Amino acid sequence: MEIVRVKNTGLRGVPVADTKISFIDGEEGVLIYRGYRIEDLAERSTFPETAYLLLNDNLPDKDRLQAFSRQIAESRHLGDFIFDSFRRWPKLSFPMDVLQASVPLLAADDPALADETREGNLRKAIRLIARIPVLVAAWHRIRNGLEPLSADNSLSCAGNFLWQLHGTKPDPGIARDLDICLILHADHTFNASTFACREVVSTRAHMYAGVAAGVGALSGSLHGGANARVMQMLMKLEQEKDIAGWVRREIDQGRKIMGMGHAVYKTMDPRAAILREMSRRLGEKLGQTKWYDLSIQVEQAALEEFQRRGKKTIKPNCDFYSASVYHMMGIPVDLMTPLFAVSRIAGWCAHIIEEKFGDAQEKPALYRPESEYVGHYCGKMGCMYLPPEERKREE
Amino acid sequence: MEIVRVKNTGLRGVPVADTKISFIDGEEGVLIYRGYRIEDLAERSTFPETAYLLLNDNLPDKDRLQAFSRQIAESRHLGDFIFDSFRRWPKLSFPMDVLQASVPLLAADDPALADETREGNLRKAIRLIARIPVLVAAWHRIRNGLEPLSADNSLSCAGNFLWQLHGTKPDPGIARDLDICLILHADHTFNASTFACREVVSTRAHMYAGVAAGVGALSGSLHGGANARVMQMLMKLEQEKDIAGWVRREIDQGRKIMGMGHAVYKTMDPRAAILREMSRRLGEKLGQTKWYDLSIQVEQAALEEFQRRGKKTIKPNCDFYSASVYHMMGIPVDLMTPLFAVSRIAGWCAHIIEEKFGDAQEKPALYRPESEYVGHYCGKMGCMYLPPEERKREE
Repeated sequence: MEIVRVKNTGLRGVPVADTKISFIDGEEGVLIYRGYRIEDLAERSTFPETAYLLLNDNLPDKDRLQAFSRQIAESRHLGDFIFDSFRRWPKLSFPMDVLQASVPLLAADDPALADETREGNLRKAIRLIARIPVLVAAWHRIRNGLEPLSADNSLSCAGNFLWQLHGTKPDPGIARDLDICLILHADHTFNASTFACREVVSTRAHMYAGVAAGVGALSGSLHGGANARVMQMLMKLEQEKDIAGWVRREIDQGRKIMGMGHAVYKTMDPRAAILREMSRRLGEKLGQTKWYDLSIQVEQAALEEFQRRGKKTIKPNCDFYSASVYHMMGIPVDLMTPLFAVSRIAGWCAHIIEEKFGDAQEKPALYRPESEYVGHYCGKMGCMYLPPEERKREE
Repeated sequence: MEIVRVKNTGLRGVPVADTKISFIDGEEGVLIYRGYRIEDLAERSTFPETAYLLLNDNLPDKDRLQAFSRQIAESRHLGDFIFDSFRRWPKLSFPMDVLQASVPLLAADDPALADETREGNLRKAIRLIARIPVLVAAWHRIRNGLEPLSADNSLSCAGNFLWQLHGTKPDPGIARDLDICLILHADHTFNASTFACREVVSTRAHMYAGVAAGVGALSGSLHGGANARVMQMLMKLEQEKDIAGWVRREIDQGRKIMGMGHAVYKTMDPRAAILREMSRRLGEKLGQTKWYDLSIQVEQAALEEFQRRGKKTIKPNCDFYSASVYHMMGIPVDLMTPLFAVSRIAGWCAHIIEEKFGDAQEKPALYRPESEYVGHYCGKMGCMYLPPEERKREE
């Protein structure tokens, strides 16, 4: 048995559970969902099909895929009280806060909330996959004084999201590119948000309670918030003449280059390779290559700088190129992290179902770690309690 | 270095971080907050003073305690959009779902949300401690067609909660008993909801995002939902003649006796001892001893039954006696878990601040555990992707 240091490491490198959902080889840059490589799924699958795979452990046959897609389409219409509430919320609210507030409202809008069977949880997952994008698009319209739009179920999941967000029918090629982005971000083993989902439902809380925790974790700048921060960096660098100099100064001053480096990958993130090519292609198609060019310049400068300092394992991660891709698709910077949730919801739900019903293992107990007390200690009888007026004021 | 099995154990017995906030000796039944024993705090402290202790690492002098209490009182008035939204939500929504939805709305209602200093987080903590009880009471009134009530800042935190819930000024003795309950539930090391809070903010998400995750974890029946389930059990047993027989049959059939046993305590939970005495005293005061009598009967029968089966470490936990106490205070069963949050918010916020600014240790990294892949595997090149029409249908 290998001895691993656990305490104060953020559980880095510590396997906490078995999973059948996804697999990463960080040394070789391999990401697999339920046996399939991410490159194959990005090239040949669709987001609903990949979501089905993550939830059900196998790719669907044609009939099952059609039924699954129909269930998603039928689940997009929300109870009126949700948008009625949105209209009352402060227009400057952060979209991730709005999304986190909305997920428990989806629980209140689920007539089968109490059904805690596996099938009941699959139905909840379908509703969440259908509804998270509707919430993100509707909030964006309402904060801009526009009305939310009804879904166009003739479009793909990605295409319908762009329609409900922008109110114009998307270019099919761009809708397909977004579909690929949704496939790429749909799962990634026990990342911080997925672990939060699993941890919360390990108490037997319902799926919505777990997903709301996942949204909270994703909002952090070290996790899902990173794509927005990459875009902010690119916008700041638009007028910068000396990219290499800027990168060097940032690293010298101990700051991170957003979108570079990953907790798990020690080589190129396979999703980043696909997104880099997509960024190039989209830039050429839209006659707007500056964001791709700028990204490449930052990547090169950063790789050289890290190389020079012996940090050879810091490479671009999936946030580094999704930023320019989303920007060219007209996604506002503060919707880039919510868009991550539009995709990751598939993985979150798959992990929640595995946590609740996993059969490869004994049902894991509720996550309840220990801590080591290093604070005030006057023995087991405790420190002496004095009334407030007798306490010495410390400065 | 001790070798601990980590995988698929729910991290039971695995110390994941240092903490200065609280300490449990599960063998001896000791619970300490920042050096002070829970028994001393329950006897001599108040909930705001204990919250100050948890947040600041020391008991306040008189001036500081007054200032802290004043800040709580001044933070109770919420933006109108929150109750305006409550009025539109389905009246049958679960109070814990409503609370989880409301916490991110408190973020939208915080003009200093972006202040991520330690002081900024202390201010957020004070707002949360002030506002969680207001939300719980207001939802209960609105769902019953009543108007929320303004706070009465001449009352204690506990007394004001009872006022905002019931609309009558509480008996001072009962308000003090509730104050003691809030002290008892305020923290408990790395329990599932506290760990969820810490995990979420380890991504650099803000305090509200973390607290919403904590609310989600607390809603689970294995965690904060247990007090409500104890009360449901007692109500079911009200007409039962043969308590010992019922307990035996439940255990025979592999079911749990709600409120018995704890992940950490192997002896009497020190909080349960205080609550048992409170339940007795309240019952006598209110001429309503049946819930205490019934609890004692269930406890005795369960202890004998577990003893007989060699399970000597299963004792009543804090939920076992808080159920009858809350019931006698007029708390509806489905508000018992939200009331847990009214107290635990103090510990959640203290842990979030420790996670963000802890100085006893290197800043812990984002929680990002590993998992072990045990699913479909066709090698690193992946399984062969076939188009849907060529897939075999498995039955």
